[in-house]
This record gives sequence, structure tokens and C-alpha cells, in this order.
Amino acid sequence: MTVNAVTPPATQADAARALRDALESPQLARVMGAHNPLSARLAEEAGFDVIWSSGLEISAAAGLPDANILAMPQCLDAATALADAVAAPVLADCDSGFGNVNNVIHMVRSYEARGIAGVCIEDKQFPKLNSFIEGNQDLAPLDDFAGKIRAASEVRENLVVVARLEALISGKGMDEALRRAEVYERAGADALLIHSKRSEPNEVFDFREAYRGDLPVIVVPTTYNQVTVGELEERGFAMAIYANQALRSSLRAMRETLIKIMQDGTTRNVEGDLASLKEIFDLQQVPQMLERQARYEELGRELAEVGR
Amino acid sequence: MTVNAVTPPATQADAARALRDALESPQLARVMGAHNPLSARLAEEAGFDVIWSSGLEISAAAGLPDANILAMPQCLDAATALADAVAAPVLADCDSGFGNVNNVIHMVRSYEARGIAGVCIEDKQFPKLNSFIEGNQDLAPLDDFAGKIRAASEVRENLVVVARLEALISGKGMDEALRRAEVYERAGADALLIHSKRSEPNEVFDFREAYRGDLPVIVVPTTYNQVTVGELEERGFAMAIYANQALRSSLRAMRETLIKIMQDGTTRNVEGDLASLKEIFDLQQVPQMLERQARYEELGRELAEVGR
Amino acid sequence: MTVNAVTPPATQADAARALRDALESPQLARVMGAHNPLSARLAEEAGFDVIWSSGLEISAAAGLPDANILAMPQCLDAATALADAVAAPVLADCDSGFGNVNNVIHMVRSYEARGIAGVCIEDKQFPKLNSFIEGNQDLAPLDDFAGKIRAASEVRENLVVVARLEALISGKGMDEALRRAEVYERAGADALLIHSKRSEPNEVFDFREAYRGDLPVIVVPTTYNQVTVGELEERGFAMAIYANQALRSSLRAMRETLIKIMQDGTTRNVEGDLASLKEIFDLQQVPQMLERQARYEELGRELAEVGR
Amino acid sequence: MTVNAVTPPATQADAARALRDALESPQLARVMGAHNPLSARLAEEAGFDVIWSSGLEISAAAGLPDANILAMPQCLDAATALADAVAAPVLADCDSGFGNVNNVIHMVRSYEARGIAGVCIEDKQFPKLNSFIEGNQDLAPLDDFAGKIRAASEVRENLVVVARLEALISGKGMDEALRRAEVYERAGADALLIHSKRSEPNEVFDFREAYRGDLPVIVVPTTYNQVTVGELEERGFAMAIYANQALRSSLRAMRETLIKIMQDGTTRNVEGDLASLKEIFDLQQVPQMLERQARYEELGRELAEVGR
Repeated sequence: MTVNAVTPPATQADAARALRDALESPQLARVMGAHNPLSARLAEEAGFDVIWSSGLEISAAAGLPDANILAMPQCLDAATALADAVAAPVLADCDSGFGNVNNVIHMVRSYEARGIAGVCIEDKQFPKLNSFIEGNQDLAPLDDFAGKIRAASEVRENLVVVARLEALISGKGMDEALRRAEVYERAGADALLIHSKRSEPNEVFDFREAYRGDLPVIVVPTTYNQVTVGELEERGFAMAIYANQALRSSLRAMRETLIKIMQDGTTRNVEGDLASLKEIFDLQQVPQMLERQARYEELGRELAEVGR
Repeated sequence: MTVNAVTPPATQADAARALRDALESPQLARVMGAHNPLSARLAEEAGFDVIWSSGLEISAAAGLPDANILAMPQCLDAATALADAVAAPVLADCDSGFGNVNNVIHMVRSYEARGIAGVCIEDKQFPKLNSFIEGNQDLAPLDDFAGKIRAASEVRENLVVVARLEALISGKGMDEALRRAEVYERAGADALLIHSKRSEPNEVFDFREAYRGDLPVIVVPTTYNQVTVGELEERGFAMAIYANQALRSSLRAMRETLIKIMQDGTTRNVEGDLASLKEIFDLQQVPQMLERQARYEELGRELAEVGR
Repeated sequence: MTVNAVTPPATQADAARALRDALESPQLARVMGAHNPLSARLAEEAGFDVIWSSGLEISAAAGLPDANILAMPQCLDAATALADAVAAPVLADCDSGFGNVNNVIHMVRSYEARGIAGVCIEDKQFPKLNSFIEGNQDLAPLDDFAGKIRAASEVRENLVVVARLEALISGKGMDEALRRAEVYERAGADALLIHSKRSEPNEVFDFREAYRGDLPVIVVPTTYNQVTVGELEERGFAMAIYANQALRSSLRAMRETLIKIMQDGTTRNVEGDLASLKEIFDLQQVPQMLERQARYEELGRELAEVGR
Repeated sequence: MTVNAVTPPATQADAARALRDALESPQLARVMGAHNPLSARLAEEAGFDVIWSSGLEISAAAGLPDANILAMPQCLDAATALADAVAAPVLADCDSGFGNVNNVIHMVRSYEARGIAGVCIEDKQFPKLNSFIEGNQDLAPLDDFAGKIRAASEVRENLVVVARLEALISGKGMDEALRRAEVYERAGADALLIHSKRSEPNEVFDFREAYRGDLPVIVVPTTYNQVTVGELEERGFAMAIYANQALRSSLRAMRETLIKIMQDGTTRNVEGDLASLKEIFDLQQVPQMLERQARYEELGRELAEVGR
């Protein structure tokens, strides 16, 4: 009997290299947000190149606002669980860095030590508020955030450092976004993420065109959802992050299913909309576990026999 | 401006009482399995009486087999997160008790201290294997498990202790199930859960009819999914646990959505199947957070003003 | 055979009442800092009334600066471990509240749900720096901190809320300390902690004399270590916290012992300075565990016998 | 201004290599047990080659019996905290492997992913009981444990796998110890740990002499504490683990100090036995933090200046 080779876990250096390759490839890299290992495995299975450890998804799964109510260790644990579950590199949403530059340094080392490929920090204040919520979206002072990016890029070994620009979200405009892009590039960022909540992609297209630096540029097409990977690639973007769709499809399905089970007093009418137990067991890698168990119990018996 | 009163968290004593009431009510109590606070909130919203902290769902969300790979503290943390998020009582799937009687005692105290309403332990060996998987389903020795139930019922203050019977799963038959039911009742269990993997409910109906004791009896209609709450109530069952449907609907929806996004190169075609951002924010209770923030910032200013 | 009754864990309401009683008693309450359950048990055994979940001790045990590098969940877990281990109430050092008023509200609910008796928050900025370190000791704006105290006192059920005054640490002087004391009292604080890093207690004596409000006043005699409980009681203080001595004695002893073992190449010469294995086992409550195990294994056998 | 170079964290591969080198060096490697990062730093500072993540110390610090009451994730977290805090490799006490072969495989991957250099598993049943406690010390069936060692050695990449022999503890005698030593060697163990609770080292000396295999042999001189590193080296042992002395010195010192503070009503008389605040801050690496903070705040200002 042979056992399916279990892929050895990638080292952090390998994971970081895979993320860098995805950012630098001429093809647009496609990234799917996840909130637990199950959704990460589904994203990998569907062919996404990178897994986004999504602050919105993880906080929503936890039933808490996306406003730094979850602390760094909780975000780290969530990202680590994803990285342990998939071969694809994990890029972690790290909000505004969880405090001052000391917190950023501690964060960078912690994420790197746990095998995460990259971190993304945004130029807002702590505690941050989700960018799609009306409320305080003030930018961090430029010197403060530039110092954090510099610190992050100096204390990491391999970790990819993405600087996320919130100037368009905060209403500070394109010039501020471009000015900050330049500073963050000089500070040592490996990539830029330009965030927008417009219903059309023109704003991020304008940024991409006006930005003259050398860094790969990432977008998050949540509100301008009609955009295609073809258009984004053509415009010169390096990566698109689908930051919340997995959670949103999960929420919709669970809500409808649970209401129906309550109304009908039976699950019979929803069975067709449910994954089978076998699908769950396969995603849990139960067959591989049972195969390994049988193998090592057999080998144990053989070893013990000789030991008599 | 008024602030939505935030329901004060129930004490563990209140939660346990609500679970006892659900078990003793003449109406069948309906219980929905959850794997994170978001799914627990959806279950509560749909009207379920109790939340089941499901071992299968939680291990599947974690990408790990339902075979005691997740340890007690991880199951406890998952159940605690549910109990923190909903007003409904939480009944926690505690597998076979995580070890010997010392582990059971530590488990009981830990779950009670975290506000969980009840725990369910099954009469299998450690490590257990999910009941729907072909493999080692051996029962625990009767004396061993009876001692655990006695210990659990003596060291808890209010925690509800459910003894789960795996005799039908393990192929030991109805007589063994009934014999053990009596012993567990004498040992101090508050309720029995009779588990079956048949595609028809006859087996659990037979048990319910043959069992002459006084404890409420719980079923888990996963494989005999055509059964209705009306039938179960009529047959004298106290509670039905839908132990994995939320996760299974989530899995199916995410798998299909992610494949479609990859194929189409855009999310435009799946937007209709996704919950809106507003739905997420509402489930995260963002509006209440912003209202409270505004209130206390205002009160802070007033207090400081007087302090001048 | 009888089993030592295991004291049922106190509810949070009981713990909070015990802390309130300690604060309001005419006798000075004595509080010992702890960094793990072992040190908390030693403090309880020595007769201290309350356990201080010490930010300095816990961060030092973790090898990290006392500068909000440890996040709220880690401080909460540490405090919870103490509360689970002792009957004495636990007062938790919560730094400056871990963020804005939303973070404070989440913190208050979390600590209350875990059975902690009280929390102490200080009027400094996030991230805070240990008060004995030269560096940024800027106070929080008055309105901001007053709003946090009001929020904490409104969202808790029973949790004791201590407002810690850092005006003397930050160099803002006595008038600022007194002004803030009044505001925090009106905001709903249950007690005040006046912090000082002077080598003489005059500064805290002056505060106690000048403060005309009704709240109990707490001191932390780290640097003015010659002061006695008799003097403090006579001056009208309600509570003294020995916030770091347990850790400091531990550190000194371990450093000397380890150096000596290395130098001597044997432990023989340090054995006289080491607690015995029996002392460890007793503090771990091993005898009680073995007694309970024997009892329930015996009861299990009896129950199974009848079940035949 | 220059910043102290912060040693980049070793990769797991580096850590494992350092542990292998320590085991294979002709010199006896000296290992000190730790229960938190502070004690690990003190051990490293004193010159110990390897840090032992001690089950007894960690459970004692947690106030819980050393009987698998702490679960794998808690042992893993404790070991990870040590590995994050020191440059020396960490060898982790993993009791009997936390369950069956599936649990061992999950454990091996988890420890390797967290940067731990090696794990030690003992041939007892789950849940295990500390070897110095009278009670159930039954050995695991030989085939069962041999299968676990084989599994561990096949699924790890670099992790060092130590097989701990409990035959002498369990009263099964020298022949059983030697028979099992051979089987574990064939199963793939990297080293053997021969445990004894005799007050004289003769028993382990006899084992070392009679064992004809090629693996390095480790001892834990807790009860035969008169033995010296010179004697052990001469007898051919590879490594000595001082598995509990740090905790025991800490316990003794705290107990005496706290009693004295209570009796005296002041800390004045114990100040001479306490480490200074400066010693704590230095072990927390506060000076390095402040230096880095100043550096990156300055660099941030410079970067922002150019960005104008």
C-alpha cells in the first residue's frame, strides 16, 4: 500500500518567494480572501494564486466589527491557520499595524515566524475602521507611516511588505495618494495597494496611470465589481484581491438554508443545496489520515515483531 | 439620542437554565450547529432555541479531521466564541471527553467557567473518530464512561451534562444502547443523545419506545433527513440537533462561487448570490458600535467640560 | 474514603463583590502581583486579599517590553488563568484600555465574561509605556479618558472599574491629578489609583490629603518601598498593590541558581535553595486529582456492575 | 546613532541543526528547563546549550497537574514562546504524544512549523502522569509506540525526534528498556532519553553501558542530583537535562518573599533579594525597543520631508 505523499509545508522563505513571483509576473495574480482553513482550501482548489487573510472576513466570522476589535494575535492566529492549511502563499491584512512602530516590528517578526508570505498595512490611524463604513477614515501622519514601512522592510528577512493607500477612501484625493506612493516606495515597500470605494474602476485606473514608480500595484475590486481580470491586466495592475466574496456567499447560503430548515421543520428540502458529508471529509483530508494511520500501525507491528 | 440597549451577557446559570427548559419543554427544541459566531447569529436569527458547538463543523472549518486532532482548549475557545455572540444557550460537542476522568473534570469546570450551558460527551474511546466515518468506532468500557458521567454531574454547578450513546453506531445493537442508557441515567446524566447513521429514523424511534427512563432524549437527524419536527415531537423526543447543515450549505456556496469567479475573471456574475456589505456590517453590530462610540465621546466631552 | 471538597469556582458577581468589600473595608487591603497561576496561588497562600494581574510581570515573563506589545487577548488570558486558579478576586492591569472607547467596551465585557473581579485603566495614550521607563508618558486627553470610564461603568454588570492617574508620572503635577480624579469620579469610576515613581511616599500622601472625593484610593509602593501598611492605612488609603515583587524575587533566584548550576556542573550545591518536587505537586493539586480519579473510577465500576 | 543588530530569528532548519550538533558533539550538552521566555533567557544567558520546554514546569506554572491536563496546543504555545525568545534551540517535552499516531503526526508538523528544534515523546499511555508521582506509569504497547516514532521520523523535515524510555520508571526493568531502545532506534529515533527516579545514577550508568546502539543518550538528573557533567561525559552520555530546577528555585524564592512581605507589612526587608526594575527592563529588551523606535521615527520624518 502506498500513501499519498503529504506535501511538506513550505518554509516562510519559499512562501515569500512565491508571493513575490506572483506580484512580479506579467500575468495578473488572482487572490481570494478567506476566513478559515476550509475557505482557503476551496480558494486554492479553484485555482487562486494567493490567499488573502481578510480582516473583514475574519472579524465577521468572529461576529465582531472590523475596527481593530480583534487584536494582532488573533489576526496572526487566523492567518497562521490559513498558511498551515494550503500550499499557496498567504498575504495577511494587518490593518494599520496594530499600534506604533514597536507594534509593527513585533508584528512583522511574528508573522514571519509563523510562515506567512506577506503583510499589508494601511496608512490609517489605530484603531482603524473598515474602509467601506462611514466614519473616521483619517490618514496616519505621513512621517509616522513612512517610518513603519521602513521598519517593516528592515526587520523582515523575506516577508513581503505591502503598503496600502487609503487616500482615496479618506477623501484626500489623488495627489495625496501619489505623494504617499512615492514616499512608501522610498521607505522600502515591496508593493502598493490602492484602495477605492467607487462603483466604477476609473479612480484606480487613474492612479495606475499617474503612478510613475516601480512597485507592483494591487487592487480590491469590491465595489467596482464589473471589472475583469483582463481589463486589470491590460491596465498594468499586478494583483487583484477578492477580499470578501467567500464570506459573503457563505453568509447568504447559511441564512437562507437555516430559515428554510426552521420553516419546513425538516432538512429534506435543503439537502440538494448542501455539500455531502463526503465532501467535508475529503476537505478535512480524512482519507489521507486513515491511510497514514493504517500504515504506521502496520509498521509499528512489524518493528515490534523484530524486537521480540 | 438613545442607544440600543445591549443585552447584558447571560450568566452561565441563566444559560444552563434556558437549556434545561428547552430539554424539558413539551415542545421539541430545535438546535442548530455552528462553527463560528457568524453562523451562530444566523441560527439564532432564524429562531433556533439552542446553538450546537459542532465538533464536525469546527474541525472542518479548521481544515482538520474530526478525530480529536483539535484539542480541548480549541473546542472550548470555539464554544466560548459562540456563547459570547448569542443570547441562546450553547450546548457543546465534547467528543469522548478528551482523555480520562481527570480530563473530563477539567473540561467540565472549564466549560462552566466560560459560560457554556451544557456539554455532550459520547461513550467512545479517545481519540474518537467521527461517527459517520468507517473506522474504529469502539465503545468506551462501561465502567470508565459511567465514572466520567458521575464525575461530570458532581463537579458541575449548573452545567447540563448530556450522555451520547454510540452503541448503534458501533454496531453493538439496541440492547447495549438501552443498558448503557440506564447506567448513564443512574450516573447522573441530564439527557441522552441516541446517535444513528441509518437512512431511516426507525432505529431511533425504536430506542425512544424501548427506553423506560426519565431523561429527555435527543436525536441528530443527519442521515434520516426526511424526518420532521412534528414526527419527532410526536414520538416523544425532546430535542433535534441539526449538527452540520450550516457548514455544508456554506461549503457548497463557497465552492461554487469561487469556481465561478475564477472562470469568469470577474465577480459581476455572482454578485446576486452574495450577501451585501451592509448585511455583514449589521451582523457585526457595527451600527451599535458607532452609536455607542458617539455617545461616550459626547459624554466624555461633557465630563471634561465640567472638569475645567 | 472522602474527597476534599473542591471549592466551586466563584461567579464573577461574587468575585466583584469580594473586591468591592476589600476596597471599602476600613482595613488596608493588600494585593500581590502575579504573572502565572503558580505565583497567584503563592500569594493567596501567604494571605493576600486580592491578586493583581500585573502588566509588568506578565510582559516580563513573556520576554516582551511592557509597552502594549502584548495585546488585550493575551492580557485577558493571563488574568483568566489567575482567576481560574485562586479563590481570591483578581484585579487586572489593563494598561490604557487597548485603544479607543470601542476597545474599552469590548475589554470590559470580555473581562467580565471571564470571571475577573475588576479592571484598572490608566489615563495614558495607546500604546502605553511602563511608568518607570523614561520615554513618552503623555496623558490621554481628559475627554477621551472620561468617556472611557463612563463607558466602562455603564456596560459592566458587576466589574469593578479602577481609574489610574498618571499625572504625577507624566510630570503634569498635583493639580492635574486632582482635577482628573474629580472627573473620573463623576464619570463612574469605583476607585482611583494614584501612581508615583518617587522614592518617598510624600507625593501620594499629599494626593490622599488633598483629594476630597468619596472614592477609595489605591497605591503601588514600588519605589517608595520603605512605607508600611500601617502608615498607608493611617493615611486613609484603601489598598496597596505590590505589583512586581513576586516576579523580581523569581528572577533573582533563577538567575543565581542557573549560573551556579552551570559553574558547578551539578545541581547538588543548589538543592537546598530549591523547592521540593512534593511542593510543586501540592501546588498543582496532584493529590486531590488522584483522590478524585480513584473515587470516580470506583464509582464507575459500581455503576457498571449494577448495569449488568 | 547605531542600533544594536537584532539577531534575525533562526529558521527551524537552523535550530534543528544546532540541536543535532549538540547531541553529536563529544562534549556533554547541557540543557536547562524553562517555563516561560524569561526563564529561557536566563538559561541562555547562563550558558546552557539548549532550552527544554518542560512539561512539569509549564504545567506547574499553570497551576495544573503534569498529567496531560494541558493539551497539545498549550504545550506548543509554551514551546513556541521559548523558541521566539532565545537563539538557543528548544527541545520540547511532548509527553506521550497526545493521543494516537494521528495526533503524533499533527504534533510533529505543528512543532516543526513553529520553529521548535526537537520533540521528545515518552513510551507511556495517554494521558500520562508525571514520572515522579506514584500512580499509573504503564508503558505503551511496543508496536503502538514504535509506529509513532516511525511516523514522527518520516513526516518531519528537520525536527529532531527523541524517544524517551520509561521502562525503569514503570518497573519493567533494564531488559525491557534495552529491548525498546533497539526498536526505537530502528524505528527512526534520533536520540534516546533514559529516565530514572533513583537517588543514585547507577541505573542510568548501567543502561548506558549495556546499550550497544548508535544513538546519543540523554539523562535527566533530578533525583540523582549529585552527579556531575564530568561523570556523565566520561560515561558516554550526550546530554543532561536539568528539567525543573529553574521553576523550583523560583517557587522557593517567591514563597519566602511573599510570606515576608505579608508578615512585615512592607517590602523594605526583601528589597535586597529582588532583581531591580532595570534588570527586568533589560531582559525585556526595552533599551533596544526604545532605540529602534527613535531610529524609525527619525527615518520616518526624513522620508516625509523629502515627500513634500
